Amino acid sequence: MPSAPCRAVIFDLDGVLTETAEYHYLGWQRLADEEGLAFDRQANEALRGLSRGESLQALLGGREVDPDTFAAMMARKNGYYVDSLQDMSPADLLPGAISLVIDAKRRGMRVAIGSSSKNARFVLDKLQITGLFDAIADGDSVERAKPAPDLFLAAAELLGVPPADCIVIEDAAAGVDAALAAGMIAVGVGPQERVGHAHHRCNTTRDVDLTVVLQPVEERVGQGPTVADGWVVIDDHHDPDQVVNVATSHLTGNGYLGYRGTLPEWRSDATVGCTVSDTWDNADGKWAELCNVPNALYCRLEHLGEAITVDAEAVLSDRDLLERRLDVRYGRQHRIFGPSTGPVARLVGERFASMDQRHLLAQRQRIFATPGTRLTVTTGIDGQVWSLNGDHFAFMEPHIHEDALAMRMNTTERGLPIAVAHAVSIQGGTVQAERIDQKERELYRVLDIEVGGDGLLVIEQVMTVHSGNDVDYPLVSSLELAREAAAAGYEVLLARHALAWEALWKRIDVRVTGDLATQTVLRYNLYHAVIATPMHADHLPIGARGLSCQAYQGAAFWDQEVFNLPMWVHTFPEVARNVLVYRHKTLDGARRKAARLGYAGAYYAWISGDTGDELCPDFFFRDVLTGRPIRNHFNDWQMHISPDIAVTIDGYVRATGDAAFVAERGAEIAFEVARFLAAFVHYRVHDGHYHLVRLLGPDEYHENVDDNVFSLEQSRVALAEAVQLYDLLRSDHPEVLRALEEQLGLTDAERDLWADVLARLVEVEPDPHTHLLEQFRGYFALEDISPEDLRERLQHPDEYWGWPNGIAVHTQVTKQPDVVQLFISQPELYDRATIEANYDYYLPRTQHGSSLSRPMYALVAARLGRVAEAERLFLRGATVDLLADSHPAPGGTFIGGIHIAACGATWQVAVLGFGGLHVRDDHLEIHPHLPEGWERLQYGVAVRGCWVDVDASNTEVVLTADPDNPAEVALDVHGQRVAVAAGERCSVSFDLGGELVTN
Amino acid sequence: MPSAPCRAVIFDLDGVLTETAEYHYLGWQRLADEEGLAFDRQANEALRGLSRGESLQALLGGREVDPDTFAAMMARKNGYYVDSLQDMSPADLLPGAISLVIDAKRRGMRVAIGSSSKNARFVLDKLQITGLFDAIADGDSVERAKPAPDLFLAAAELLGVPPADCIVIEDAAAGVDAALAAGMIAVGVGPQERVGHAHHRCNTTRDVDLTVVLQPVEERVGQGPTVADGWVVIDDHHDPDQVVNVATSHLTGNGYLGYRGTLPEWRSDATVGCTVSDTWDNADGKWAELCNVPNALYCRLEHLGEAITVDAEAVLSDRDLLERRLDVRYGRQHRIFGPSTGPVARLVGERFASMDQRHLLAQRQRIFATPGTRLTVTTGIDGQVWSLNGDHFAFMEPHIHEDALAMRMNTTERGLPIAVAHAVSIQGGTVQAERIDQKERELYRVLDIEVGGDGLLVIEQVMTVHSGNDVDYPLVSSLELAREAAAAGYEVLLARHALAWEALWKRIDVRVTGDLATQTVLRYNLYHAVIATPMHADHLPIGARGLSCQAYQGAAFWDQEVFNLPMWVHTFPEVARNVLVYRHKTLDGARRKAARLGYAGAYYAWISGDTGDELCPDFFFRDVLTGRPIRNHFNDWQMHISPDIAVTIDGYVRATGDAAFVAERGAEIAFEVARFLAAFVHYRVHDGHYHLVRLLGPDEYHENVDDNVFSLEQSRVALAEAVQLYDLLRSDHPEVLRALEEQLGLTDAERDLWADVLARLVEVEPDPHTHLLEQFRGYFALEDISPEDLRERLQHPDEYWGWPNGIAVHTQVTKQPDVVQLFISQPELYDRATIEANYDYYLPRTQHGSSLSRPMYALVAARLGRVAEAERLFLRGATVDLLADSHPAPGGTFIGGIHIAACGATWQVAVLGFGGLHVRDDHLEIHPHLPEGWERLQYGVAVRGCWVDVDASNTEVVLTADPDNPAEVALDVHGQRVAVAAGERCSVSFDLGGELVTN
Repeated sequence: MPSAPCRAVIFDLDGVLTETAEYHYLGWQRLADEEGLAFDRQANEALRGLSRGESLQALLGGREVDPDTFAAMMARKNGYYVDSLQDMSPADLLPGAISLVIDAKRRGMRVAIGSSSKNARFVLDKLQITGLFDAIADGDSVERAKPAPDLFLAAAELLGVPPADCIVIEDAAAGVDAALAAGMIAVGVGPQERVGHAHHRCNTTRDVDLTVVLQPVEERVGQGPTVADGWVVIDDHHDPDQVVNVATSHLTGNGYLGYRGTLPEWRSDATVGCTVSDTWDNADGKWAELCNVPNALYCRLEHLGEAITVDAEAVLSDRDLLERRLDVRYGRQHRIFGPSTGPVARLVGERFASMDQRHLLAQRQRIFATPGTRLTVTTGIDGQVWSLNGDHFAFMEPHIHEDALAMRMNTTERGLPIAVAHAVSIQGGTVQAERIDQKERELYRVLDIEVGGDGLLVIEQVMTVHSGNDVDYPLVSSLELAREAAAAGYEVLLARHALAWEALWKRIDVRVTGDLATQTVLRYNLYHAVIATPMHADHLPIGARGLSCQAYQGAAFWDQEVFNLPMWVHTFPEVARNVLVYRHKTLDGARRKAARLGYAGAYYAWISGDTGDELCPDFFFRDVLTGRPIRNHFNDWQMHISPDIAVTIDGYVRATGDAAFVAERGAEIAFEVARFLAAFVHYRVHDGHYHLVRLLGPDEYHENVDDNVFSLEQSRVALAEAVQLYDLLRSDHPEVLRALEEQLGLTDAERDLWADVLARLVEVEPDPHTHLLEQFRGYFALEDISPEDLRERLQHPDEYWGWPNGIAVHTQVTKQPDVVQLFISQPELYDRATIEANYDYYLPRTQHGSSLSRPMYALVAARLGRVAEAERLFLRGATVDLLADSHPAPGGTFIGGIHIAACGATWQVAVLGFGGLHVRDDHLEIHPHLPEGWERLQYGVAVRGCWVDVDASNTEVVLTADPDNPAEVALDVHGQRVAVAAGERCSVSFDLGGELVTN
Repeated sequence: MPSAPCRAVIFDLDGVLTETAEYHYLGWQRLADEEGLAFDRQANEALRGLSRGESLQALLGGREVDPDTFAAMMARKNGYYVDSLQDMSPADLLPGAISLVIDAKRRGMRVAIGSSSKNARFVLDKLQITGLFDAIADGDSVERAKPAPDLFLAAAELLGVPPADCIVIEDAAAGVDAALAAGMIAVGVGPQERVGHAHHRCNTTRDVDLTVVLQPVEERVGQGPTVADGWVVIDDHHDPDQVVNVATSHLTGNGYLGYRGTLPEWRSDATVGCTVSDTWDNADGKWAELCNVPNALYCRLEHLGEAITVDAEAVLSDRDLLERRLDVRYGRQHRIFGPSTGPVARLVGERFASMDQRHLLAQRQRIFATPGTRLTVTTGIDGQVWSLNGDHFAFMEPHIHEDALAMRMNTTERGLPIAVAHAVSIQGGTVQAERIDQKERELYRVLDIEVGGDGLLVIEQVMTVHSGNDVDYPLVSSLELAREAAAAGYEVLLARHALAWEALWKRIDVRVTGDLATQTVLRYNLYHAVIATPMHADHLPIGARGLSCQAYQGAAFWDQEVFNLPMWVHTFPEVARNVLVYRHKTLDGARRKAARLGYAGAYYAWISGDTGDELCPDFFFRDVLTGRPIRNHFNDWQMHISPDIAVTIDGYVRATGDAAFVAERGAEIAFEVARFLAAFVHYRVHDGHYHLVRLLGPDEYHENVDDNVFSLEQSRVALAEAVQLYDLLRSDHPEVLRALEEQLGLTDAERDLWADVLARLVEVEPDPHTHLLEQFRGYFALEDISPEDLRERLQHPDEYWGWPNGIAVHTQVTKQPDVVQLFISQPELYDRATIEANYDYYLPRTQHGSSLSRPMYALVAARLGRVAEAERLFLRGATVDLLADSHPAPGGTFIGGIHIAACGATWQVAVLGFGGLHVRDDHLEIHPHLPEGWERLQYGVAVRGCWVDVDASNTEVVLTADPDNPAEVALDVHGQRVAVAAGERCSVSFDLGGELVTN
């Protein structure tokens, strides 16, 4: 798709976003009354668009006053006005105002306020939307008021957007005049007689549709959905086979809960689900997983007994009939439904999981229907939930209140109390009758509504969720929040939510100029990476499928540290810290696992939930050919998880300098991991080396191997870290070490043992001729066959390729990078020749059975300057969920859901790969290698308390250091060393020469 | 079946077994001529049955001579006679004589000579059959000559058989008189007028049929074959589905070659095969195996173009039509075929692989047909051989000689030259025409024969085989031997062969009195154990299927040491030594395997052929459900093979005191095994122990386990042995140690390492409460299910139950004893409570997927006094081949053939189990526990150069020490200590009290 021009929207404030006219009127009225001047509402109408002085002039109606008195009267009136503004609140936002601003932003436009008012900032603050705007031009910004173009030109200048690319939304004739004078596109809000001279006109703010002004820039991704404007994913084809995948892809969430992208009238058979973190429950005695809670966003419309609904079981491929959108900027799910018959012309719904208030979901449906139409609306709580493994609710109790409904339940295994509440409000219609419909696990409010005169019925609905792990009284909290949220109204909730997202995007966003489709795909991944992360807590993991469904048990794998944490470490170190604290808090679970398997120290669970105990069952795959259970050894043999965590802590501390974390948490983890490793290793007198015996490395197709290089090198770093920390604490913080020694029963002898294991841990060197590293002992002796040829041996498409007798087991075909993963984890270990040789050897032997596989190769390829191949791999990896072409159930195990680690990996490929970022001990290395068509790549990076914005191309890197940085940041850009002081900006040019491989 | 009374046959010599009458006649004639007496052949006839003095009296015809002259004349005549006897040879044996003696013996009868001649021993020696007889009564034995009964009574006395149970075969009237006078059953050989007064009469020796005198004692074994007389297996039902099994069961062999029990007219499709040792060849690039050589015993009869043959593809269940027998006493295959139509009434064939001359097979077919019948006999070499894995003969060249045919070939992979020769001779018919029929790999002599006047055509055929590993010129040797053998004739070859077997049975036989069926089954197993063993060589292994076919690659497994060698160690230590020498000679192969897998020392091949290199391929089973190859880890993980060999050497040396073997071979093996173990073990700092990691123990259903108790304890003995031998050699034979140290690069430090490994090798103790030993770490945590219930999970009867995902893998169901095997290997390690508890725990969890399983449990049960259960297990185990109810092809791999290890195990159950023999360091322990119905159990045992015959019941043990014993033998019989000096006999009585469990 063509790159959209950089656009902006400049909003007048009064009459467009809010109605301060009333407050002005009250101020003028009071002044007029005090001065005995004739004034009324009609007279007030004539003041629209006038400056304060002009207004006073009009009020005086020819009465002469001296300039001082005039000024004093102006000040008096403004005092009255400002006094009254104290009472302003988000309730003063005009209907549709927030949606309009948000819509502009999610279209990728920059937004500004262009208001003559000197109180603009004050009002914005009262409305609690200041943070939504990129710039504010107000009465203090310029001399000449509207209709002079000065204010709007000033706003454009602040935004850095040419006036011709700006749209102005104005309700006053003078404002429209000013916009036209500025050479901008004017959209008038109001009657023809007032704003008819604008390019476009709408009656109210709610009616403004930016797509009329600016067509969206859309592009279809392969055979999959369409992406638009850098922020939106559009599915306009409904296929029953894709119900589960689209619902997953369109997930909304906030790190506390995930709500699937289904439609309000759908039920569990269409995979409706709200997965809530920290609710692990083992209902079937085998499989602990998070709970899907009852759906309080259920809403079904009927007209004369006929449902107005999208049938999940029927194909719909007419975009006019159904369009579903995911706004990844704000995590909004949209549904635009145009029934072909009946009195309802269009049904436009949207909803989101609030990033501002994590226990809250909000939903708004706008129904465009013939005025007077009678609709039956069933809205409430559907407790017949979709659950993968057993019924998690032994008990479910309905609560009916006038203004809210609730369902209280206890989980099956643990008896954890959970409550879900629901509230609904109706605008644009009259409720003629109302009743409660209560069935087994269902609780609805049934409303008989007559659509009002302007033919737009709005149903706003909120859902709230709390568990006993969040609050003491989940039912009370949920009901309270539901009532509050319903009272605030959808747009206010949306505004708060959007502001929270703004703060995230400020650091997370990675901007690709020149390729809007890639930009959208990239942000889609960042979005999912964010909503999967329990940013709010330090006792919860990042689930491998986030909160997109119950798959992977809502639990952490190595994915968390290796694929997801790098983004957080480099953007929000405090979030990374939270996740690492989680690892510290679950040390006891890791200790129990180690003890159970006959080791010491901390053997982290392969699948880690709230306690850190191993959640991975021995059996979950089935041999699809025989139906027999397959024993996996992810839980007992995939030992690299422990050193992976230690290595990540090492990296976190290097990137943040968070010494407190080391003393409080990190050292204990490092020591327990080293202790585990010393217990795990096997010493062979035969060769005088410690070995890793019976492992799985990252490549899960080869279980039961020895001396897997990746695991060895991760272990080496973990052991070195433990010894160094021990020595460091002994010299610098002996009291910390003493406490740990006492707590853990540590001794110098144990530290010496770690040092011994480190010294004699077997070394696997690259072959001096081929530079190849053998993935594990004996790998090169396995059958050498391509993944494509191997695939021919499949007898069933769902076969698991790995252990114990899958088709890959006795071949060199690997599931994902293993040796090559090491080049990402420890890029400094090997020289370019080794990295290149192993990349070339292993890539063609990799089946990409993990969604992480292609991104990791992409990362290495990008660093090697092989940008074309890297881009191909990157895009295939980054669209795994978008295209939903991965296999949801190998070996009979449901593994649907968002590939959260792949999302995190996407950030890594962009920033660490193409962006070439590498955090060294004392400087940042930035070696960009951008694919053709990527004009610029912009991202930010947090390092040791500083923040740097990077704007890179293949010829230049522009660095901007945050003004608040406590120190200068040293950088190496393709070999050029620079240092950027706080608030400074610096540009480094370079010549890549023939370093890029662009085909 | 009823126990047969002990019977004997007493043979007159002259006229029955041989014809010395001619030599007597010549002696008398010479005396008569010298003395001028009238004498001729007619006069000589009158001397039949007379003593020497009576004969001279008759010759003198009334002429008076003084007693001195009379005596001198007698001496002169005897001198002439004895002089002429010098020319006697086996050629003087009467037709059928040897067969008759052999037949009596294989009926379980004792045989004696009852001959008036004072030269009887001399004649027997000349005939080379002395050794066939249990007793000899001759002219020196008694005063009174026949017809006095004295001689026969003396013979009966010598045999220890009551006269009424003796049968006398006599050709003289006086002899018959004597037999009748002795109260014996008389069988007369000769005309009615001479021996008509006997109970039975035949014209010639060849016609004597003992079954007429004494019905065989037969009993059917289950649904399988009939066993008879303690020595014979009879199959009288021909089922095409059982062609392969019966041919296997009826194998004849001699440790050099095995010839399957097929019929002479059959070909490769009926699994005709002669498997020859030391001919390993890998024809298909995957699978090394022994060669099946061309069949030179091929013989087909036709009458008027119609074959007289048993159709292998048709069911025949009439015993009159077809009976096949295996005489396990002499390894003879018999076929009695009675075609229902045509001029041939009966076809009686037999053949054997000579135990006297291992390169020779002899076959005789007797065709009873209408005199004058014209038969076409096609006899020669069929080179279209049955081969499991590829064509082993790249080259095959026919050689045609007047008196012999031969086929010379080279093996495919190694080019080993092999030759097979054939010779045939005809009696009782006239060859009317003869031609050679030569086709691709076939070479026949076609004879047109007219059956002679007495209606009995005899075809004698010999086959000889040599390879380049046996002789320099296989073709020359085979032709030469074939000619010699054909010239000697079938019966002479049979006599030599039988004598060789006699020497074996003297030590190998285990006699069960009171249960003739069990006796036969037992001997059937001993027979197969013997013919599988390369007794003649010290560079060859005992194949797991012996030489019964090509299955199991003709190679040794742990079976050889653990299951087969105990019998040899305790009967023919020199054979055990040979086999252990083989292990020494293949040390280099074991060293190569160790090195290849990253170890040091000697890791013996799981499948060991001539070089000791590992023959076990990585893949041979197939998953029958998917057709996919299954990787087995028998070759790289079943490490107990090395300590098993060391433990066996330890036992061999303890039982034999063979210090020379230790110095020359044993120490080197022990050191290299210890070196391997030290390289194999993994030390865990965590618990301060060495461990065995990633193993298979004896139970092959559980691969990839750690610290298998059996393997640990075997390793412990092996390490202790190495350290002890090292110390012993250092103190007693420093020069031997010096040489080994130099050769192997051994040092004191290495010896100390072994001692360290020994000291810190992990110990697995029985649970103090349950007494249970855990088969390997984690075993008790596996699913506990019975083998019967588990079997329900089978989806295909041929499924392999084990690695990697067979139904048993994740359960406690074991293939065979594993912990319990340890009680056999090291019975002194654990107390009775432990043995009993583990026996009780593991037996119901054992699937008996190995033929060795039940015998081993039987052994332990017998030692525990649970004799009824032991007997049931024993009989099921001992009939595995007889009933042919085991599965010939699990996972698509042909594993047919005789279960040689089970055969060896049968000896162990009888002697070590029921017999209660246990060789301790300084004494023998003999604690018999016989099943009900076993009156006595008799066996012999070699220990430290001595030989003891044991005759045991449940109340008494009678011990007889061989007169040649170099020392007295100390024994413990149920707690009573005795010592038996050379040539002495001693009896110990005891009371088992309630020790036996007989239900």
